[in-house]
Order: sequence, then structure tokens, then C-alpha cells
Amino acid sequence: LSSKKTDSEISDLGEEGWIRLIRKLVPQSSSRVLIGLGDDASLTRIKSPLISTTDLLIEDVHFIRELHPPRLLGRKALSVNLSDVAAMAGIPRFALLSLGIPPELKRKELEEFLKGFLGQAKRFAVELIGGDTTAAEKMTISVTVLAEVAKARVTLRSGARDSDAVYVTGHLGDASLGLHILRQGKKPITRAPGYPYGTLIRRHLDPAPRLELARDLSRIAHAMIDLSDGLVSDLGHILEETGLRRGRTLSAEIETSRIPLSSAFRKYFKLTSRKPLPDPALRFALQGGEDYELLFTAPSSARVRESLSELARKHGIPITRIGVLHRSKTFFIRLFDPFKKELVLPEPIFEHFSKSRSPRKPEP
Amino acid sequence: LSSKKTDSEISDLGEEGWIRLIRKLVPQSSSRVLIGLGDDASLTRIKSPLISTTDLLIEDVHFIRELHPPRLLGRKALSVNLSDVAAMAGIPRFALLSLGIPPELKRKELEEFLKGFLGQAKRFAVELIGGDTTAAEKMTISVTVLAEVAKARVTLRSGARDSDAVYVTGHLGDASLGLHILRQGKKPITRAPGYPYGTLIRRHLDPAPRLELARDLSRIAHAMIDLSDGLVSDLGHILEETGLRRGRTLSAEIETSRIPLSSAFRKYFKLTSRKPLPDPALRFALQGGEDYELLFTAPSSARVRESLSELARKHGIPITRIGVLHRSKTFFIRLFDPFKKELVLPEPIFEHFSKSRSPRKPEP
Repeated sequence: LSSKKTDSEISDLGEEGWIRLIRKLVPQSSSRVLIGLGDDASLTRIKSPLISTTDLLIEDVHFIRELHPPRLLGRKALSVNLSDVAAMAGIPRFALLSLGIPPELKRKELEEFLKGFLGQAKRFAVELIGGDTTAAEKMTISVTVLAEVAKARVTLRSGARDSDAVYVTGHLGDASLGLHILRQGKKPITRAPGYPYGTLIRRHLDPAPRLELARDLSRIAHAMIDLSDGLVSDLGHILEETGLRRGRTLSAEIETSRIPLSSAFRKYFKLTSRKPLPDPALRFALQGGEDYELLFTAPSSARVRESLSELARKHGIPITRIGVLHRSKTFFIRLFDPFKKELVLPEPIFEHFSKSRSPRKPEP
Repeated sequence: LSSKKTDSEISDLGEEGWIRLIRKLVPQSSSRVLIGLGDDASLTRIKSPLISTTDLLIEDVHFIRELHPPRLLGRKALSVNLSDVAAMAGIPRFALLSLGIPPELKRKELEEFLKGFLGQAKRFAVELIGGDTTAAEKMTISVTVLAEVAKARVTLRSGARDSDAVYVTGHLGDASLGLHILRQGKKPITRAPGYPYGTLIRRHLDPAPRLELARDLSRIAHAMIDLSDGLVSDLGHILEETGLRRGRTLSAEIETSRIPLSSAFRKYFKLTSRKPLPDPALRFALQGGEDYELLFTAPSSARVRESLSELARKHGIPITRIGVLHRSKTFFIRLFDPFKKELVLPEPIFEHFSKSRSPRKPEP
């Protein structure tokens, strides 16, 4: 910890000052909150069964502080947890926020971070009820979200069935490609007018949790997960959990030409619809993480497809069928190009621990 | 992140391997756990109102990895959260554990850490239901604990009253003095036979959450907090919260000669009972944090004192009256030596953010 200080550095704010800042910015709590910030623990009213999820974000592993506007970083810290709640089709209620704060962080940056977090909380009716703060070398963000079950229905990873179709919401690969572009540019350029890849960068900086869509999908989906690790890894999680919990061994066939790609993504790789995806594009789309879209399995019947089209229109988010599941002896994922030729990914399908989610590591 | 690897380094375990390790070590879950580890979020049965608390521990800020046996570190990571639950007189049920893992951490160390965490969880009937893992430069531990209210009664920081006596459990200053000794020795020496300060070091490495005692105290205490920041800071929190939430402005008078000190602590500073505490001893006792004892206020009536003596005997933990609260115009804490002389602490009473809980910084 540096002993060098300026007026605006966080070490001069003090822990007490930081708590006062939070209390100033946090809105009046609802009647669900009996004890919020300021005691040893919070005390809240919430329905059982309780959904709980937590994510840990560390500077230079999950985000690059100089390239991530603090307001969007605060928003993302909550969004990635809300995305996990979405994958369960839950209704988020409360959040706990712990921060490790580097001494050189400006008070203004911290305030912006908090405003981003609290703005997103307000949008989804989530209340900040607790947390912890400490000094740290790298900015460290740990968020826990507590949620209720909507209409006594949750969607799990483990519910996939033989002959289910595999669907995804939105577009894949944008967030990881956005990070790649952001790193090349070395500065946040989301607001530059006419800059063609702003939408890609925005998808990395400010992912949207699909909470409302997920609750509608829970009436249809057999299994659901949010896309945080990348399509291949996350589909692997569905197959693995279905095997572990239901004893159902399934394999997946994915038609890579069906993977939904945004126009900005296509433009970046100069893609035309006829040709198979070139290798780098394929890897961003299949293995780039952090799109925070939903991946789910459901019947491929005409009735289901019609319902999904309606939901896509209602929420303004595309829903695309990209493959199918089959019963099999072991679980595996096969990828096919538009000419039914099987593709082999140059890297192992499951990411290695030391590389997972690390923006400083070589790109996919 | 280093690219140098050996067989036993964690980067070779892989995230999937780490999840398999956790699943291997986590015992069969109870019927309270509908969905535990392995999905996007957990789903559990718990009574409302819900107690929730979270703590963030970072290497070189809260602990020194080379000096902290990993099994005890795992235990402490849970204990400090259980201590917050104790301060509310709650019954802990579930824990979420997020870990940032440096690439050089050995698989064996991680397994030991997890065993320490799970051993303490088992002891207090807490179930591990979720978490997150990622690479990190410094080992980073974020724990959230969810708890129920015992007999519809919680104890808050904000309940202090005029004329209350101030009480503490156990001995103060041991943990911070233990850390000081540990740093001088530069190696963990808890098991060395005949080493006189092992108990002090142990109090830093492995604090005991006072859950059962706290639930008994909740029938008597008006306000309660666990001692994580140090006596003066934590008593300040009680006064501040009582002022904020109840509009009651109170000041405290503490008789420093009444502060309970362990025989090891007295031996280290060569203390006799007659003389005022020398400055360094005073500062460890008053401002050294992390004792995780309970600080509470309650009437000083003979009946209450008798009840507290009984509880002290029942739990084998001393309970000591160290001062008194008075109504006042502003809130403040006054400290007196055995000759009723007022003491002035050389440093501001509330710790500065950048210094709080940092073992690398100058000692108190």
C-alpha cells in the first residue's frame, strides 16, 4: 500500500467516510429490510426457498480498470449476478457488495462505481443490504445476490432431455470480441460517434441480464444456464449436470452456421452467410465468454417454436435454435459446419483454470 | 499470472478439477438444500427473516499466507462470518465461498484450506451451498453466511441505553499481539512445545466465534457487536448506531484497568496488576482488532451480573464489566487509568481506511 496520497484518493475518504457515502447514495429501504447497512449483519424478509448466488471479480483477471468506466463496472458487478438469478428464472431481491479498494482509486471513481451498481439495483428492484470494504492492491469486487423463486418454478442446468433442441438468446461472441477490440485500442471508446464496434465493446462493459425473458422461458425450457464461460463450456455444464443429477447421458450436435452473430461481429470478420466461419470468428462465438445470454434446451415442436417466436418479439431479443441433444453412452459435443463437416476446435473444449476469464491471457 | 507450472500447482488442477475436489469433500447435504453446488445458483429452505453477512479477506491485507497454516486460514474465513452471526444472536445455516487463487498455490494447500473451512462448517452445522473461483495474484477469500433468527430475537448495535454497563467476553488484544509476534518470528510456531506465546498466535490464526454464548447473552444484552476492529472502534459503532437509529446520544467511560487480559498477554508485557498499562499494551488491548469476542451493553444490576457470572461459568468464557454509558450531548469515549486519570490515545480513535486491518502496516 502506497503512502503517497492526494486529496481525492480513497485512503483519505476513510472507512467511516466510505460507509457514510454508501448510506447517502442508498435509497430508503423497503419494508422487506428490517436491518440493512450498518449492523454486524442484515435482517430481511424473503420467501423460502431462497435462491443465492455469488461472483468474484478481480482487476486484471475479469476487467481492466483503466479501460472500464467505473459506472459501467459497478453495473456489470451486479448484472453478472443477476444473470445467474435469471438462469434460475428467479426474482432478485437483495445484494451484498464487498470491495477491495486500491489506495490510488479516486473518490470520484468509487462514487461512480457505486452509482452504477445502485442504478442497476434500482432498475431490477434489488436492495443493497450489506457488504464489506478493505484495502487491496487490485480492485476486488464480490457480490452476492439473494432471490425468490417465481411462481414456484426454477429452471436448472440438469433438466435436459433426449431430443431436446438447443436454443440461445441474443448474439454470441460480441462480449469477448469487444474486450479484444478494447484491449487493442487501449482506451474506452464506447461513445466515439460513428465508431463501428462500440456495440461490441458495450457488450463486454455492460452486459444485460435477461431476467424478464428468463421467467417467461421457464414455462418452456427443460434446462437453462447463463452464458458466462462460453457456449461450449456452458453447454458442457448442462450435459454434465443432467448426467450427474438425473443419470441421463446426452450428447449435443451444434450447427455452427446457426449460431446467431450480430451485424457488428459479422462486419468485424467480413463474414458472408455462405461460407463456414473462419477460425478466429468461430472461437469467439463458441468459446468467448461473458455474453450473459441464456442457453436452454426445450422441445423442438412447432408449438414450442411458435411460443419462442412470440417471446422473442415480446422482449425484442432473438431466440435461435442452434442444435439438438441425443441420448449417448458418454457425453460430448459435436460441432458441424454448414456442409455437415465436423469441426475440431484447436484447444481443449473445457478451459483451463489458470486461463479462465483472464483478459490478460491470449485471446481465444 | 505465471506460466511456470509444476505438477502440484493449482493451475494444473483446472476449474473443473477444483469443482470436483469441492464436491468430493463436501458432505451429503441436508433436506434444507434443494439445489447446492453445481448450478447457476443454489436453492435452499431457510426461515424468514433472514440474517446475511459477508466478509472479504485478502492476502497481505488480512493474512500473510506463508505464516498462516491453510487449514486454519480456511477455518478463520468461516469463523469471522460466524462471529457476525453471533453478534446478532443468530443460527448460521449456509455459506457461500468465493476464492481467488494464485497460480503458485499448491493443490495440497487448497485442499487443506477447504478441509479447514468445511470442518468448521460441520462443527456449527453450516452447509456450503455455492461460490465462485477464479485466478488471482493475491489469495482472495469472500465468504457470505446466511442464518436464521433464534427464538425471534436479534441483538443489534443500536440498542444501547443510558446507564448501561459495558461488558466484553474473553480477553482483548491477544489476536493483534499474536500477529505482531508471528510477524517477528516469520514462521508459524504454534506447535512448538513450551513456546510461551503460542496461545496469542493461535488467537490470530484461529479465532473462535461465540455463537452459543451470544444466543444466551441475547436475553440480557441491549446492544451487541463482535470485536473485529478493536474495542474503541467497535464501541464507537454501538454508540453511533444507537444515535443514528434511536436518536439516543450516549458517551462511554472505560476503565482500562478492568480490560480483561490473558496471562500470556500480561507475561509478554511484564505487567503487574498495580501499575497503569504501558502504552504499547494499552494500544493492543484497546485498538488491536480481530479478537472476535463479544462487546455488549446491559444493565449493571446485581441480578444481571449474577446471570452473566452463570453464563461465563456455563460456557467457560470470562465476561467482564469494563465501563459504563451516559447520556450526553455528543457521543464520545473516555478512557481512565486505575487512578481515575483520563488517557489520551496517541492516534485518532477511528482507524483510517488505508490502515484498517493491514498486517503489513506499522503495528498499533
